[in-house]
Amino acid sequence: MQGPAISQTKQKAVVLLSGGLDSATVLGIAKEAGHECFCLTFDYGQRHHKEIASAKALAEWAKAPHEIVSFQLPWKGSALLDEGIRIPKDRSPEKMSEEIPVTYVPARNTIFLSFASSWAEVVEASLIYFGANAIDYSGYPDCRSGYLLAFQRMIALGTKRGVQGKSPQILAPLLHKTKAQIIQWGIRLGVPYELTWSCYEGKEIPCQQCDSCLLRVKAFQEALVDDPLLKTQPTTFKG
Amino acid sequence: MQGPAISQTKQKAVVLLSGGLDSATVLGIAKEAGHECFCLTFDYGQRHHKEIASAKALAEWAKAPHEIVSFQLPWKGSALLDEGIRIPKDRSPEKMSEEIPVTYVPARNTIFLSFASSWAEVVEASLIYFGANAIDYSGYPDCRSGYLLAFQRMIALGTKRGVQGKSPQILAPLLHKTKAQIIQWGIRLGVPYELTWSCYEGKEIPCQQCDSCLLRVKAFQEALVDDPLLKTQPTTFKG
Repeated sequence: MQGPAISQTKQKAVVLLSGGLDSATVLGIAKEAGHECFCLTFDYGQRHHKEIASAKALAEWAKAPHEIVSFQLPWKGSALLDEGIRIPKDRSPEKMSEEIPVTYVPARNTIFLSFASSWAEVVEASLIYFGANAIDYSGYPDCRSGYLLAFQRMIALGTKRGVQGKSPQILAPLLHKTKAQIIQWGIRLGVPYELTWSCYEGKEIPCQQCDSCLLRVKAFQEALVDDPLLKTQPTTFKG
Repeated sequence: MQGPAISQTKQKAVVLLSGGLDSATVLGIAKEAGHECFCLTFDYGQRHHKEIASAKALAEWAKAPHEIVSFQLPWKGSALLDEGIRIPKDRSPEKMSEEIPVTYVPARNTIFLSFASSWAEVVEASLIYFGANAIDYSGYPDCRSGYLLAFQRMIALGTKRGVQGKSPQILAPLLHKTKAQIIQWGIRLGVPYELTWSCYEGKEIPCQQCDSCLLRVKAFQEALVDDPLLKTQPTTFKG
């Protein structure tokens, strides 16, 4: 016997989508949870646009509306934005986590979450999904739970929806996951990692030397999964 | 007898400068305090650009570096950004303060302060000056001291300078001043109000009907000062 159909309004969620592994996984998690997703990507003068193309492809995969907000930081202040600063290469993961990296963009996550809060207010989203990770990038101050809670409290005080007691909750489901755990979670959810991009350089194929590439390689190795982005086309023999 | 010259490093301050009365006054206050000012203005799809021109003129007056950050909010959500929403006219100040106005831009001040925090981090500014006012615009949730304190706490947790215990303080010296008090303070400091722009419309002369114009007129009346922006050129007689 079938029970009555339960009419349930989907919760709306703004999903910060960079085009990398973590945000792709977060989109998979939000989708799996049955939320109505609104994907938000930033074009902020990164050295290349490959990850923005990845974000577009991922939003299409999720059949979710996608907005790209463009801005420039005239003061740069990061190797990701300034060609005058060298992006470090071939560093061990231990070395990477010792200090705040030069690829840290001043207040970037605060800027990202601010825009997400604005959109969340307009579409009346009750959730903001954010792929922050405190393990691989322990050097980034804006990837820690205390910071995220402080942000959530701040927007609860500073927005119209907050005044009405409906301020969005910030969810960072990957905060304490290793990259390998993230990938294993994403694989279970069917996240199309072949659409993602991690390399700080914007060349045809990943450089395999920057911090981001090295973390990705290590993560797929530990997850015991082949990186679908690196899969070469099988050699075909013509008869 | 002259004492020894005291070598004192100036404190650096990022000043949010919209081009209106309040931010012009705040710039005057920061200048008077002897800070090295960095003026920051946003071009975010306001209906007109007159206030940006005003901000430029004010930064020149203060001999301060000036950056303009441009972005669009694709979701709009405010009469200031959306020509489909009518800007209310001829409302009494009592009526204005009853509700959150349609000119409220979702999370705008959070976005503005986020960019200010980013620049503050790069130039190592210890102060962010912000012309928020809790009296005339009581309807804006992001013009209240609890919100500003929460923002300050959030960036202390989420930036590199914050981790080093050097996060900037947010100063909102006008928070509890009436517009008339603000003008009287600015006049004492020599703030050139003829360079400012308040009207929500972007016409040749202020419309004198929108909320912002009406507050300005009332403020100059209460301050017993003529608005230099409205001063007509004196008639000259040729002999």
